[in-house]
Amino acid sequence: MPDSTKKAIQHLRKRPIGLLVVISAPSGAGKTTIAHAVMKQVPDVVRSVSVTDRDMRPGEENGKDYFFVTRPAFKKLLSKNYFLESATVHNNNYGTPRKWVEKQVKEGKIVVLVIDVQGAEQIKKLYPGCVSIFILPPSMKELKQRLVKRNTETRESLTVRIRNAMVEYKFVHDYDYAVINDDLNVAVDKVTSILNAEKCRVLRWIERKL
Amino acid sequence: MPDSTKKAIQHLRKRPIGLLVVISAPSGAGKTTIAHAVMKQVPDVVRSVSVTDRDMRPGEENGKDYFFVTRPAFKKLLSKNYFLESATVHNNNYGTPRKWVEKQVKEGKIVVLVIDVQGAEQIKKLYPGCVSIFILPPSMKELKQRLVKRNTETRESLTVRIRNAMVEYKFVHDYDYAVINDDLNVAVDKVTSILNAEKCRVLRWIERKL
Repeated sequence: MPDSTKKAIQHLRKRPIGLLVVISAPSGAGKTTIAHAVMKQVPDVVRSVSVTDRDMRPGEENGKDYFFVTRPAFKKLLSKNYFLESATVHNNNYGTPRKWVEKQVKEGKIVVLVIDVQGAEQIKKLYPGCVSIFILPPSMKELKQRLVKRNTETRESLTVRIRNAMVEYKFVHDYDYAVINDDLNVAVDKVTSILNAEKCRVLRWIERKL
Repeated sequence: MPDSTKKAIQHLRKRPIGLLVVISAPSGAGKTTIAHAVMKQVPDVVRSVSVTDRDMRPGEENGKDYFFVTRPAFKKLLSKNYFLESATVHNNNYGTPRKWVEKQVKEGKIVVLVIDVQGAEQIKKLYPGCVSIFILPPSMKELKQRLVKRNTETRESLTVRIRNAMVEYKFVHDYDYAVINDDLNVAVDKVTSILNAEKCRVLRWIERKL
């Protein structure tokens, strides 16, 4: 066996390959549900908890779903370059803590970022080796029904979310993978397969960078 | 939803995405066993049966493992451009029937070609969209043991196979994916994940060509 191959295999065994994974979708397509389910199935997957200044929804937990901060606190973190990416969505701000993410990937973890298309664009520029997945709801009709059923939105916010979804759809072509979420289990299996497959990419053995 | 996205989803639903998959490995790394196991797990996977002029091994079946032909018959097919790729390995000839493969992929099937590194190189040039997977045995020692255990090789042929394996290893870097076969079930799951993931690639939705 040539030394270079032997080295690659030894290296691979010693420390698993880390991945930075970006999952985006229009609101209501099920991206958060999918991310949680994938975390349960794939070892080494961790979900990055974003910082936001939006209001907490019923059932949400500070530090688990998001770190909830005030608008001035968010601005301060932003000015200190604390975030890997940040975005304003539906008039609220969201940001991903940079240092935590880089540390996890270096240690061989799979970090899943559930972020919107703006944030994803920033990440892809910074880390060309990231894996990007776009979740599609089965149809626009289904998407509306899910959002209404969730019952966490005012009528105004619902309209904004649906209008944004129409715009976000166009970005599917900028992602590596697209998964239609008409059956949650099937969608979760597909995302799981994508992560497992990406760990087998020869380029990742050689380069081993984010 | 923009018309282009709607169209892509409709298209995807109407007809599954076909894939041309190349699996290579040094003799004894377990590529044929893996290919058979994957066929059982993934719907729509078909394994291309190659034509060869080598001697039939005990337990092999004509038309299932290979189409066994005489040396002159092979040469005639070759001259008629019957093969997608052909290669001489261990002094025997192998070829993949072109028309059958192209028809299957167009119909949305996943065609798995278990071929050597020379053949794989030809396929990758002809069909840049193919998926290439290299199977690695856990170590050179393990590879030798497996070949001896198989007990189908003369001492001379064994030496040729091991020498070739040393050369073939270097080609791992030309493949999209590499899978270490130290546990058959794990290796089969990895190959299955790769196929499922590749079907979700956005580029394949857009281009839909081999």
